[in-house]
Amino acid sequence: HQHASLIVRGRDSPGIVAAVAGVLREHHANIVSLDQYSDNPQGGAFFQRTVFSLDNLRAALPEIESALRERLAREFDLEFTVRDMSVPKRVAIFASKADHCLLDLLWRHRRGQLPITVPMVISNHTDTAEEVRGFGIPFVHVPTGDGEHSEVEAEHLRLLRGNVDLVVLARYMRILSGEFLSELGVPVINIHHSFLPAFIGAAPYAKAKQRGVKLIGATAHYVTEDLDQGPIIEQDVARVTHADTVTDLQRRGADVERTVLSRAVRWHCEDRVIRHDNGTIVFT
Amino acid sequence: HQHASLIVRGRDSPGIVAAVAGVLREHHANIVSLDQYSDNPQGGAFFQRTVFSLDNLRAALPEIESALRERLAREFDLEFTVRDMSVPKRVAIFASKADHCLLDLLWRHRRGQLPITVPMVISNHTDTAEEVRGFGIPFVHVPTGDGEHSEVEAEHLRLLRGNVDLVVLARYMRILSGEFLSELGVPVINIHHSFLPAFIGAAPYAKAKQRGVKLIGATAHYVTEDLDQGPIIEQDVARVTHADTVTDLQRRGADVERTVLSRAVRWHCEDRVIRHDNGTIVFT
Amino acid sequence: HQHASLIVRGRDSPGIVAAVAGVLREHHANIVSLDQYSDNPQGGAFFQRTVFSLDNLRAALPEIESALRERLAREFDLEFTVRDMSVPKRVAIFASKADHCLLDLLWRHRRGQLPITVPMVISNHTDTAEEVRGFGIPFVHVPTGDGEHSEVEAEHLRLLRGNVDLVVLARYMRILSGEFLSELGVPVINIHHSFLPAFIGAAPYAKAKQRGVKLIGATAHYVTEDLDQGPIIEQDVARVTHADTVTDLQRRGADVERTVLSRAVRWHCEDRVIRHDNGTIVFT
Amino acid sequence: HQHASLIVRGRDSPGIVAAVAGVLREHHANIVSLDQYSDNPQGGAFFQRTVFSLDNLRAALPEIESALRERLAREFDLEFTVRDMSVPKRVAIFASKADHCLLDLLWRHRRGQLPITVPMVISNHTDTAEEVRGFGIPFVHVPTGDGEHSEVEAEHLRLLRGNVDLVVLARYMRILSGEFLSELGVPVINIHHSFLPAFIGAAPYAKAKQRGVKLIGATAHYVTEDLDQGPIIEQDVARVTHADTVTDLQRRGADVERTVLSRAVRWHCEDRVIRHDNGTIVFT
Repeated sequence: HQHASLIVRGRDSPGIVAAVAGVLREHHANIVSLDQYSDNPQGGAFFQRTVFSLDNLRAALPEIESALRERLAREFDLEFTVRDMSVPKRVAIFASKADHCLLDLLWRHRRGQLPITVPMVISNHTDTAEEVRGFGIPFVHVPTGDGEHSEVEAEHLRLLRGNVDLVVLARYMRILSGEFLSELGVPVINIHHSFLPAFIGAAPYAKAKQRGVKLIGATAHYVTEDLDQGPIIEQDVARVTHADTVTDLQRRGADVERTVLSRAVRWHCEDRVIRHDNGTIVFT
Repeated sequence: HQHASLIVRGRDSPGIVAAVAGVLREHHANIVSLDQYSDNPQGGAFFQRTVFSLDNLRAALPEIESALRERLAREFDLEFTVRDMSVPKRVAIFASKADHCLLDLLWRHRRGQLPITVPMVISNHTDTAEEVRGFGIPFVHVPTGDGEHSEVEAEHLRLLRGNVDLVVLARYMRILSGEFLSELGVPVINIHHSFLPAFIGAAPYAKAKQRGVKLIGATAHYVTEDLDQGPIIEQDVARVTHADTVTDLQRRGADVERTVLSRAVRWHCEDRVIRHDNGTIVFT
Repeated sequence: HQHASLIVRGRDSPGIVAAVAGVLREHHANIVSLDQYSDNPQGGAFFQRTVFSLDNLRAALPEIESALRERLAREFDLEFTVRDMSVPKRVAIFASKADHCLLDLLWRHRRGQLPITVPMVISNHTDTAEEVRGFGIPFVHVPTGDGEHSEVEAEHLRLLRGNVDLVVLARYMRILSGEFLSELGVPVINIHHSFLPAFIGAAPYAKAKQRGVKLIGATAHYVTEDLDQGPIIEQDVARVTHADTVTDLQRRGADVERTVLSRAVRWHCEDRVIRHDNGTIVFT
Repeated sequence: HQHASLIVRGRDSPGIVAAVAGVLREHHANIVSLDQYSDNPQGGAFFQRTVFSLDNLRAALPEIESALRERLAREFDLEFTVRDMSVPKRVAIFASKADHCLLDLLWRHRRGQLPITVPMVISNHTDTAEEVRGFGIPFVHVPTGDGEHSEVEAEHLRLLRGNVDLVVLARYMRILSGEFLSELGVPVINIHHSFLPAFIGAAPYAKAKQRGVKLIGATAHYVTEDLDQGPIIEQDVARVTHADTVTDLQRRGADVERTVLSRAVRWHCEDRVIRHDNGTIVFT
């Protein structure tokens, strides 16, 4: 049996679940899991994630898609996407010098914990090259130091466009321009090393130490033009004390970062995350 | 708008969701939330919790119930229960001397955080009588020290039968007999002051101290004839160190106990918990 | 055996521990626990908390204090405070309408979990009056609505000055002036219903919902003239999802608030918290 | 400045701290941190960990050791060990097929987060050979399948004796005999994939699924002849639901296992863990 995910979104109204389930039923698909959320059953925003299975999924998918379009468009004004989940998402990972988030993703990928392929790792440093290649993954060095920002981004676009479904910034310490994001055309997930919105910007661990907080955190979010302001996918924290130095905070923080980023990437690639305004619906 | 919960369970097969949603659609009910779980989409055990709303719910409920019976019985061999959620469950709380779990429940009840009424508190001690009555709730003292166990249980049954939908043992330190449980005929939730199945039986904090564990826990579970073996509803833990005495463990544990028990009671009374074999499906 | 706490602070230099332990040894005191922290052993800021026991503590304390003054002043330029721990701190609690933090403190107090007396609860509302008096604690209503802010604070000062060692703001929704704080002369602990420094100011739960965070928090801190900027004593968080409404966040948040505030009050009253610059050293 | 750790243990009595601090003072050592614990100040078991710094530590250490022996033996009947912390502990890691605990240790080691050297990894399988050697660490394959248990252990002893200060079982799925442990003569740390003492023995995740627990855990402990009964160093848990399969539990559990084991190894190698009866004192 093969699985497909169906994401439906739009204005809530009675009968949506019946309509969706009816189409799937007619095509003999079996609903494996179903999650839905509505911020107001009387005409609010509606979101549904359905996973269904079918013997001859690949062959039947176009027909199901067409029936869904017919049905969800006629009766309801809903958007939807349906996707064969056996096709892994193609994920490019950006890294700089720190390796903890990058290696955690590659290691989980190798263990089969992430439904992805990794066509390339791009870095502005060469520190992680050997290790990345040890995983059998191409490593591309795109230095950023001296060139024009736009030239670097042009090279990134040449490498990425058409080749990836997602870009993950695994502690990549450079800002991406709005032009780049819009030309790229696929989502970008970043890990920020603080509990956003606290300590936005640079050096969050130093700021956390200075402020004397008792917990430090990490936040995985979609990248938007507004730095550190994109929709949050996942967050977590770790307890710290006055005795922890900034270096200790970085070490403890690194554990939270890699965990949070890996969760966010997995959820995104399992079609569990829906962006809505500046937030997310996460069906875990 | 009024809300009803619909719990469906049975053998999984294609079309269940469509059938349920279809019936609700036909009766103009609006699905507010829907959760489902199947341990195997090919004929495994299937569970679904649907909350729906309707203007004239109370009037329409018998008709919906009859349509569901027709539909779910004809096509599928499914059990279901449908319930008007505006009717709070009637909960009797049993306590002994410790007040932390009892007071937490009463306080949340007063704040409107629990969809329950509390027709009575029963205790084998009088320590909490004044406080309970301060909440406007009847306190019944049923001493257990000298009488026959069966006489005590007979008195409990006289008080409870027909009057309650749930019994909560809020650190009630007496064992209930299998006869009592079967004659009572409503679920009983207990809070066990350890992370079950570790430290079953008496004095778990002393055992935890002795074993040198680094976390202590609490477990809310349905009571069955097998002591400490009933289906687990919720668990949580707190971090402890070598420096914590048994008294410290009790104090820290009390915080976990009241939190875990309150969650379990709330989830049960919102129809979020389904018993299955010796486990639970919890739709949170 | 009676216990005393000794807090020592100043510039770190070799020999401090030996000096303190020597004085205690000479007076036949037994060190029960000892914690120390130095942000730099070469001349940094040094903090030490020692708990010692002695049979005739009360009688011996002045002599020990004098020996410590002699020793720590002669060899080292250190400040210290020594305190008989059997004397509970006198704590006034300020509340408004919300009762969760207030009741949690009073419950723990009654259970003997807090080394405090509560000479009075002061509120600008009467909602909690009956409940507070049920604990046998005086409730004083000081309305704030119409009067001059300075008149209200003058009444507060008349009630408090000389009568309390600590003021706890248990969700007291009014700002205290710098004049009031300086005339009061004892520490004030506040619970802020967010993970500071995120969401400073009013309505943090609404802001958290808007920002789509996945964790909400609470922060107990000392009150300074700069609102929400005082030294942090304790923080904690709870996990939330997109499905939680602002009301849900408030309910979940209330649990975190009362836990965090109770911990902060207990630690303060056990002399475990030392203020330093705008942070705290917390020996737990 | 170089650092040394001093662990003192024995029967509690007044003056120990003064004696220890006095010796260090006389040798111009600077106390960097000091933790102590006594289970009863009146003659109970006493434990102290002191870290001190000194310019010419290596040269002065024998003299300090001799002064401590003189002082702590003459006045008090105490055991102690003092150790130059700049000398990393030599740690052999045992693994089988699973790589998550092994790789986490090697990554942290490479990042400088563990004060250890890793002279060898020993495995009864070859799955991790290439990866281990990629870290520049010798990998030794000692198959266990067909040979006598005693022959395998004899080979282990030939490899280890005199060469290591600690053995870490990073999901090594074979039992060590009591003879081996006593001939080995250095501590052995194991990671057990459950929250001990729940689910001792084999297949804990399957048992956890069967029992319907809501949290799964991992336990790092010293290995003794009694399987799964040795002193616990560290534990942690992760939340799971009814929807998690045994495979999901293993994946989530793996994250907890590697975190817990890495913490335990770091604490042990920083001399933060003291065994006492069947428990541990952990100064974190």
